[in-house]
Amino acid sequence: MDKVKVGIIGAGRIGKIHADNLLRMAEAEVVAISDLFVSEELKRWADARGIAVVTSNSGDIVLHEDIDAVFICSSTDTHVPLIMQAAAAGKHIFCEKPVSMDAAQTKEAIEAVSQAGVKLQIGFNRRFDHNFKRLRELVEQGRVGEPHLIKITSRDPAPPSLEYIKVSGGLFMDMAIHDFDMARYMTGSEVESVFAQGAVLVDPAIGEAGDVDTAITTLTFASGALAVIDNSRRASYGYDQRVEVFGSRGAASADNDYPNTVVVSDGEGVGRDKPLHFFLERYNEAYIEETRIFIDCVRRNLPLPVDGNDGLQAELIALAAKLSIQLNRPVKLNELASMREGV
Amino acid sequence: MDKVKVGIIGAGRIGKIHADNLLRMAEAEVVAISDLFVSEELKRWADARGIAVVTSNSGDIVLHEDIDAVFICSSTDTHVPLIMQAAAAGKHIFCEKPVSMDAAQTKEAIEAVSQAGVKLQIGFNRRFDHNFKRLRELVEQGRVGEPHLIKITSRDPAPPSLEYIKVSGGLFMDMAIHDFDMARYMTGSEVESVFAQGAVLVDPAIGEAGDVDTAITTLTFASGALAVIDNSRRASYGYDQRVEVFGSRGAASADNDYPNTVVVSDGEGVGRDKPLHFFLERYNEAYIEETRIFIDCVRRNLPLPVDGNDGLQAELIALAAKLSIQLNRPVKLNELASMREGV
Amino acid sequence: MDKVKVGIIGAGRIGKIHADNLLRMAEAEVVAISDLFVSEELKRWADARGIAVVTSNSGDIVLHEDIDAVFICSSTDTHVPLIMQAAAAGKHIFCEKPVSMDAAQTKEAIEAVSQAGVKLQIGFNRRFDHNFKRLRELVEQGRVGEPHLIKITSRDPAPPSLEYIKVSGGLFMDMAIHDFDMARYMTGSEVESVFAQGAVLVDPAIGEAGDVDTAITTLTFASGALAVIDNSRRASYGYDQRVEVFGSRGAASADNDYPNTVVVSDGEGVGRDKPLHFFLERYNEAYIEETRIFIDCVRRNLPLPVDGNDGLQAELIALAAKLSIQLNRPVKLNELASMREGV
Amino acid sequence: MDKVKVGIIGAGRIGKIHADNLLRMAEAEVVAISDLFVSEELKRWADARGIAVVTSNSGDIVLHEDIDAVFICSSTDTHVPLIMQAAAAGKHIFCEKPVSMDAAQTKEAIEAVSQAGVKLQIGFNRRFDHNFKRLRELVEQGRVGEPHLIKITSRDPAPPSLEYIKVSGGLFMDMAIHDFDMARYMTGSEVESVFAQGAVLVDPAIGEAGDVDTAITTLTFASGALAVIDNSRRASYGYDQRVEVFGSRGAASADNDYPNTVVVSDGEGVGRDKPLHFFLERYNEAYIEETRIFIDCVRRNLPLPVDGNDGLQAELIALAAKLSIQLNRPVKLNELASMREGV
Repeated sequence: MDKVKVGIIGAGRIGKIHADNLLRMAEAEVVAISDLFVSEELKRWADARGIAVVTSNSGDIVLHEDIDAVFICSSTDTHVPLIMQAAAAGKHIFCEKPVSMDAAQTKEAIEAVSQAGVKLQIGFNRRFDHNFKRLRELVEQGRVGEPHLIKITSRDPAPPSLEYIKVSGGLFMDMAIHDFDMARYMTGSEVESVFAQGAVLVDPAIGEAGDVDTAITTLTFASGALAVIDNSRRASYGYDQRVEVFGSRGAASADNDYPNTVVVSDGEGVGRDKPLHFFLERYNEAYIEETRIFIDCVRRNLPLPVDGNDGLQAELIALAAKLSIQLNRPVKLNELASMREGV
Repeated sequence: MDKVKVGIIGAGRIGKIHADNLLRMAEAEVVAISDLFVSEELKRWADARGIAVVTSNSGDIVLHEDIDAVFICSSTDTHVPLIMQAAAAGKHIFCEKPVSMDAAQTKEAIEAVSQAGVKLQIGFNRRFDHNFKRLRELVEQGRVGEPHLIKITSRDPAPPSLEYIKVSGGLFMDMAIHDFDMARYMTGSEVESVFAQGAVLVDPAIGEAGDVDTAITTLTFASGALAVIDNSRRASYGYDQRVEVFGSRGAASADNDYPNTVVVSDGEGVGRDKPLHFFLERYNEAYIEETRIFIDCVRRNLPLPVDGNDGLQAELIALAAKLSIQLNRPVKLNELASMREGV
Repeated sequence: MDKVKVGIIGAGRIGKIHADNLLRMAEAEVVAISDLFVSEELKRWADARGIAVVTSNSGDIVLHEDIDAVFICSSTDTHVPLIMQAAAAGKHIFCEKPVSMDAAQTKEAIEAVSQAGVKLQIGFNRRFDHNFKRLRELVEQGRVGEPHLIKITSRDPAPPSLEYIKVSGGLFMDMAIHDFDMARYMTGSEVESVFAQGAVLVDPAIGEAGDVDTAITTLTFASGALAVIDNSRRASYGYDQRVEVFGSRGAASADNDYPNTVVVSDGEGVGRDKPLHFFLERYNEAYIEETRIFIDCVRRNLPLPVDGNDGLQAELIALAAKLSIQLNRPVKLNELASMREGV
Repeated sequence: MDKVKVGIIGAGRIGKIHADNLLRMAEAEVVAISDLFVSEELKRWADARGIAVVTSNSGDIVLHEDIDAVFICSSTDTHVPLIMQAAAAGKHIFCEKPVSMDAAQTKEAIEAVSQAGVKLQIGFNRRFDHNFKRLRELVEQGRVGEPHLIKITSRDPAPPSLEYIKVSGGLFMDMAIHDFDMARYMTGSEVESVFAQGAVLVDPAIGEAGDVDTAITTLTFASGALAVIDNSRRASYGYDQRVEVFGSRGAASADNDYPNTVVVSDGEGVGRDKPLHFFLERYNEAYIEETRIFIDCVRRNLPLPVDGNDGLQAELIALAAKLSIQLNRPVKLNELASMREGV
């Protein structure tokens, strides 16, 4: 394939980011974009970028005969049906996380993808962050020896709107799911059990909406390694995204990125600017990189670095974390199958 | 009291450190030292320092009429009886941690101290570390707002001997107990429940001895705050002792201390020396400071910064952590009373 | 002006970088590119980017009626004649540094630009670096008070070829000229005198070619401030570009940028990757930003942030530095006029 | 020699610091202290430390038959006569810097010491700082290759009193002399020429007193290396003492020391406490170490790490720096002999 022709489903913030990143690649072409509501603004936006088709019908994209690959950036509840349709139409698929909030449905989607022989990449963009990529590289090279413990700090600058929180699937499925994927990525091993403690410390309204805003999750891995993740919906100093790996031979850690290196010293103390504010700033390059790699793998028919099973495993961990809070005990991932009614 | 006259019980490494620190203080005088085995070397050591009495009988110290305060630096099983005797003899007491491995006995000792109206300080030296003291100061001043989450990294450079591990009370009672105290110190709140995950990743022999060498412990506090502590018996890069406090207004963290600030850049990368090697280097000043404050409080009859109850609470958390691993579920501190048989 | 139509003169590395950066801007259009030698590769390169005109004649660009602005990226000896022609043709000009190696010619070029009423920006890209821009911002805001002393570290990873060095104008005119501009930018004041010490420590062949490879230059400013710059043609650890400003109220410093934040700790020590390797990596965004601002100022007829006089002043300092080494004494900038024969 | 018996001449701040440091060493004994004015406070101070002799006559110390070594901590003008007397009396000598402000007298003193066969250590305490010692160690091990350039930042938190400044010998002889020694220590080579630029930016009264408060000094070394030192009498953020060494294979730098490692992040930015405030805090351990080594060398008859010639060389550099400012040109160290009238 010379150029990968792409259709984007969902013209929200992330859909537009992917579109703009694809538009800069000589190997990709954005042919069409769909959104439930096609505004004049969206038409102008697409026009300025030479995107020919703008439609309110995602089917126009999935079934478009010129399109090689679809980017599913619409709401989570649409992911599974769109994956099934796209797979049936023989399109390669890039899908935002989570695939769904129901592991059985996610499995069905993965099965359909597998049957159709198309590719499915999940939007775990942080694997492509320059810091975390370098960290994983060092772990793979054995610089820290066998990984014993992973520590992930993952804190947003401020909570999203309550409306969003209510449909988000909760802190674990919406936010910590990235960290669950990161822990698997760093260890290269599968999670066996999950224990989560949650608290409502940022905003009582989040608690009233049935969610937590602060959490600590402990994971045990098949390899014997442990991981611990702390999440908060609010870090007043900005976006806090750090990972540490402790192993038999040493430790490696990835710190936050900062907008500049300037340090000021005066009579009060020594200071610098806050870390990069939020995911658009911090993961700007990672979004480009994940898209570039997806296009490259589709073009050259290579295996993807993050596939449907990676999406599924992270969802299972998120479901186990929610259940762990309900039951106030560790939950094994293999309990989830038998417990599906209770989830 | 002009000068506090001190007797040291137990002439091991820590007993000698306390002695040397006390000898440098104009306000203290070391009158006697005891050890089960009085070697020629110990006699010479005491002689060079002008310590008049060297005895194998701790009773000679506890009952010595010139002595105002005793430092209990002998093995853990002797702590409670020595505290009881010293209290009965009206001596002020500095006791190394843990007071005992049995919460009921620790309570008895505290009760005896209270009845006798003497002072009891527990050797939680890390509260006096320049970094952690500054961190607590900032938390108290409200610089981070209400504490939401405490993260403690606590890793030793290498495991102690198996002989020691077998009698140590285990990783939680021997090593993590410092971190449990640190979490209480930072939050200023009491622990309600404990969940611990342990693993044997450093040395299988530690597992065979019935202990773990790697652990993650999650604490919940009465204030609603959470804490998470990771421990390892081996950090190949040296002693790793860091604390982070995340609060409603910001975050504060204390990093390790290094032997120097020198950074070398060459064709390979940018590097510096490892952190200070172990507790004697890192907490050298903290040991001096805890002793200085104990002497000062005794002299001026002031309340102590770390008392018997602080010892008891940390022990209860350690017991709960051990139980949590056995039961593979979170354990509430108030379960411990009713469960004493099982502990 | 809706879109600024640009012609590029000189299709070397920097010419192509500017072209690619301009091509990404909706407000600019690259209409033509010239190079003394038009290779097939260059034709393909231009074709892939939709650049219509590829010519070996810079006159085709300067006189092209559709072109609003020219980017002069050819060798230094062509700068002045091209500026004169472009000014005469009413084109706005972006010119790489140095304008020339002869201050009188540079003045003539500036005069021509002024007469023609066109804009001239000099390629001092480092003013647009995120670190140095932030540093200057803080100085302007008075965060360090009145600037007293500027310290600039400026070291390349490895010397260029001897052939290049021979025609480069020497370390001061080729390399340190950026730092001379930086010192003026940081102080907001003009240089009065220059003292330079040079040495040949990296490669004797550089000395045989009549240049130095290591230098320390001290500047005094009209404001009373001092500056000191150290340059080396080789820093084995990579590109070293740092600035410190000390003032009456405090100090501010800008450190290097690194490819990632990952730190590894093991039995040997604590290490991280080297700084970003060279100017293309470190100043990637600065090149984009200087181009963006030039286009914006041309479109909206705004004053430029770096103009011909900035180019002239930096050249004068470089000439004074060379002379200072010859005479082994400080040289005043106002000596240069009367001494022109000697230069 | 079992114990070195010491007499202290001059009971100012630094004399008392040396006394207290010596009192903690088993291998030293402080026998006597002298001061021009023997106050009641000084008598009490000496009494509390068991120092038997307190006298206003320095001769009582120099000629005291029990004394093996004298610490000369009195005003600079007394150094040379006291060294001559002490040498004649066969005492080993520790003398604060500078030996004198007249190189010829310093040479005489060194000659007398040499004739008498006693030891003379100069109080360049910074060589014993843990950071600079480690830096020198790495340079000696060849970690940065051949040293090309040394950069020293040396800034005091606030100027001393004008009275002090007037008799201090000026910024170069009083303050920068430490940095001149540091540059020699780091390169292991001798200075050939000096160029200094000075300014009065901190306090005009310092200028009226005939001194500068801000300076940049460039040194060239016999090895071909260059060094540059910046000094200021005021750094509002505290004591700023840093050294960088750039060499053929890499670079190494020593940063300031901080009172703690705590970092606070909030909505404003990321901050930490200022560096250690001044020399007593920063060089506390270095003072102990220089004393310990002097005592050790005297006891075991070993060569001293910093001797009279080190004192002389640093003085010559300071004299050359002063002259360089007067003449506004670089001054060679070997010019000083012939120019003595002019100095």
